[in-house]
Amino acid sequence: MAKELKDLTKRSVNYSQWYNELVVKADLAEQADVRGCMVIKPYGYAIWEKMQRVLDGMFKETGVQNAYFPLLIPKSFLSKEAEHVEGFAKECAVVTHYRLKTNDTHDGVIVDPSAKLEEELIIRPTSETIIWNTYKNWIKSYRDLPILCNQWCNVMRWEMRTRLFLRTSEFLWQEGHTAHATKEEAVERTKQMIGIYAKFAEEYMAVPVIQGVKSETERFAGALDTYTIEAMMQDGKALQSGTSHFLGQNFGKAFDVQFLNKENKPEYAWATSWGVSTRLMGALIMTHSDDNGLVLPPALAPIQVVIIPIGKNDEQMKMLDEKAEAIMNKLKSLGVSVKYDNADNKRPGFKFADYELKGVPVRLVLGARDLEQGVVEIMRRDTLEKENVSVEGVEEYIKNLLDDIQKNIYKKALDFRDAHIYECDNYEEFKERVKDGGFFLCHWDGTEETEAKIKEDTQSTIRCVPFMYEQTPGVDMVSGKPSKCRVLIARSY
Amino acid sequence: MAKELKDLTKRSVNYSQWYNELVVKADLAEQADVRGCMVIKPYGYAIWEKMQRVLDGMFKETGVQNAYFPLLIPKSFLSKEAEHVEGFAKECAVVTHYRLKTNDTHDGVIVDPSAKLEEELIIRPTSETIIWNTYKNWIKSYRDLPILCNQWCNVMRWEMRTRLFLRTSEFLWQEGHTAHATKEEAVERTKQMIGIYAKFAEEYMAVPVIQGVKSETERFAGALDTYTIEAMMQDGKALQSGTSHFLGQNFGKAFDVQFLNKENKPEYAWATSWGVSTRLMGALIMTHSDDNGLVLPPALAPIQVVIIPIGKNDEQMKMLDEKAEAIMNKLKSLGVSVKYDNADNKRPGFKFADYELKGVPVRLVLGARDLEQGVVEIMRRDTLEKENVSVEGVEEYIKNLLDDIQKNIYKKALDFRDAHIYECDNYEEFKERVKDGGFFLCHWDGTEETEAKIKEDTQSTIRCVPFMYEQTPGVDMVSGKPSKCRVLIARSY
Repeated sequence: MAKELKDLTKRSVNYSQWYNELVVKADLAEQADVRGCMVIKPYGYAIWEKMQRVLDGMFKETGVQNAYFPLLIPKSFLSKEAEHVEGFAKECAVVTHYRLKTNDTHDGVIVDPSAKLEEELIIRPTSETIIWNTYKNWIKSYRDLPILCNQWCNVMRWEMRTRLFLRTSEFLWQEGHTAHATKEEAVERTKQMIGIYAKFAEEYMAVPVIQGVKSETERFAGALDTYTIEAMMQDGKALQSGTSHFLGQNFGKAFDVQFLNKENKPEYAWATSWGVSTRLMGALIMTHSDDNGLVLPPALAPIQVVIIPIGKNDEQMKMLDEKAEAIMNKLKSLGVSVKYDNADNKRPGFKFADYELKGVPVRLVLGARDLEQGVVEIMRRDTLEKENVSVEGVEEYIKNLLDDIQKNIYKKALDFRDAHIYECDNYEEFKERVKDGGFFLCHWDGTEETEAKIKEDTQSTIRCVPFMYEQTPGVDMVSGKPSKCRVLIARSY
Repeated sequence: MAKELKDLTKRSVNYSQWYNELVVKADLAEQADVRGCMVIKPYGYAIWEKMQRVLDGMFKETGVQNAYFPLLIPKSFLSKEAEHVEGFAKECAVVTHYRLKTNDTHDGVIVDPSAKLEEELIIRPTSETIIWNTYKNWIKSYRDLPILCNQWCNVMRWEMRTRLFLRTSEFLWQEGHTAHATKEEAVERTKQMIGIYAKFAEEYMAVPVIQGVKSETERFAGALDTYTIEAMMQDGKALQSGTSHFLGQNFGKAFDVQFLNKENKPEYAWATSWGVSTRLMGALIMTHSDDNGLVLPPALAPIQVVIIPIGKNDEQMKMLDEKAEAIMNKLKSLGVSVKYDNADNKRPGFKFADYELKGVPVRLVLGARDLEQGVVEIMRRDTLEKENVSVEGVEEYIKNLLDDIQKNIYKKALDFRDAHIYECDNYEEFKERVKDGGFFLCHWDGTEETEAKIKEDTQSTIRCVPFMYEQTPGVDMVSGKPSKCRVLIARSY
């Protein structure tokens, strides 16, 4: 691992390659021998699990319940919501048969042609159709509403160009699907969930995000409004990190989900859906990590502290083992997760590099000689600063240090982002500057034509109409027509 | 719901129908509009989540880590392990295409014939093949071993006759896959995991199980030994509730997973796999529930206590709300999950029936009049016994009652099972008695012929060679040949 680390491409040389290498070298994930799919390795999965636990708790606090709906969707369901099928149904895995049989030479299997399905089934690319087909039977009266379901599952979209975590054919996610009696309640839920995603990104991932609403062309297929959180990566590109959709009555109508309202009149149910995926892993990695490897926020790090002993002989090692155990017990009682690595088949230098690569927030070196002086060496991964600290009370010191690291990496990411947000009113200047990355706040006339021209000229897109900036009317930098507000434009993943 | 409850078929009338109805009426799951697949509803999923949390913690305590491997498996992988493909590959969902397109009449979608895969992909029926294909790259030296991975995921087997939770085309499960340097270590892990399943079944599900080893014909396809836990349902049938497989070097050889051992010699890795699925839900339901509905063990009940207020007017209701909140807070501080149902659009009688149907272990009725006497009414779901209890200290009373219920339903199930285990040495008698259910301990000569005859004559199968009984040699009841030990025979799900 230490050897491999030297080979990690520097961000300044090739940011994209740095990312690809880091994901593999840090044991987060790897390409599977199945086109476009990934294997999430234990260390990567441990981070994802921590994300799941926190998000799941946040959802449940708002009354959301988990459920599970089928993986396979009958083909005909997809065409029921016209816009949805246009945007979604095309690139997906199609199940056509349900049996294999031994081939004639008895050395392999072939698809049994007699086991052809009457109607093909699609592996879910998202589950609005199958879920609203189910809700039809659950919703009769306003008393059955709201329904607030979420599922943690795998989905599949047949992507041509894939990158680990950022875009894979199969990925893991959660998808929430709610049904409401009123438009107002559905809109409120849509906003509430994007707020939860933003809170999670900022407080746990330490990734600052910009909340906003998508333009019509960038909306989810079938949505009336799509809210998004957009994060800035270290190359200045945007990463859409979570979306929440107000679906109006589109799916209610498509699947005939009607309920009797308080006045005993039939009405179509109002829908929202919202999701975050293993793509968040990509955002986490790209926001904080450096040329030495991962930098993980303590709130999501599977191992928050690693303790490495350095002793010359068995007697010293025995003493260090005992000291380490005492420190570990105190750390655990403070809610800190800690690993003690006294493996004798790896040298300390190798371990140092390995845990740096893996982004463990705090390293404690327990040296026999230092201990005689009553000190240990503490290194914080975010700044790589080392310090000798009194072993007395080191646990509280570490606990506070973890809090400080969490805050510091958030602030660093926030400062970086804010230093790369520009207001821009001149299209020539914009075209030149957007090449170097960054978020641009520009006036837009609201037309698809202008949006398409910007995309064609610069490969950048309107990420959202951000909520966080005060908005004043102006003049579209491309068309010269009046604009209601500035939108956020950037190149993106 | 109260009305529907009346329609619940009694167990004595039709046990199978009782089960099917109960799963739906108690809001656990329902048939999806996709052949053989189910929707797990929030209440059912909440029980599954509790199972997952507990099992996941038990696995991790033994060093297991979670990971994620692809849903789709290239067809050719399945034929690499000869026995495995015979047993498994046949009835499965086959992905042949990766794109849909709009049809000529523009009112639907069809499979795009130009998007045919070169090699078909199979939706995993189990993941040994894809995982061992991955392990090949992870394992070079004995230092890389053991690998102890588990994944929580969905799998698919194209079942012709399906029943909710017991047998569905898609189901949820966990599958552990470990790789070891020695045979001994792999065998030990196989046994360790079946032990964990047994502990979970007995301590959390309150379901007594018999551990044992499967006969050769009942083994997992590709295994050298399959360990099982077998539970007895109330109709005397066996339900295989979890299995753990010692796979020898079969998958190591099939996928060329070699490592250098301590002597620097190449060796094939040793494998185990083990799993439990949403089938456990079926075992849970069928073991404890009664003609009034579900009976849930407190350890896995999503709601352990429901509090229902009975008041005549707003003033009384306000007082009851306050009293309920105080009780709830104390219960929560004792780690008890509690729901307060003061909905005013349902009558108490309706609520009583509903929570009985849902198997909530303890019901506390908060009556305005009772409260004046300083008492509340407590009903325990397992025995349906009601008791007036002093409101002072009721929280500790409930906490103890929950423990008692957990123990009581386990004991009830254990007594029932033990009363229906018979030693039998006469085949004619066996044939007659096995029709009525029960577990039969019979001598078996160890041949496939005898095993097949028993199955053909009686639709019962050898469930396992149980570990728990002292074994002495004897005479096979069918063939009259010598037998090494008694095996457990029963009809099964």
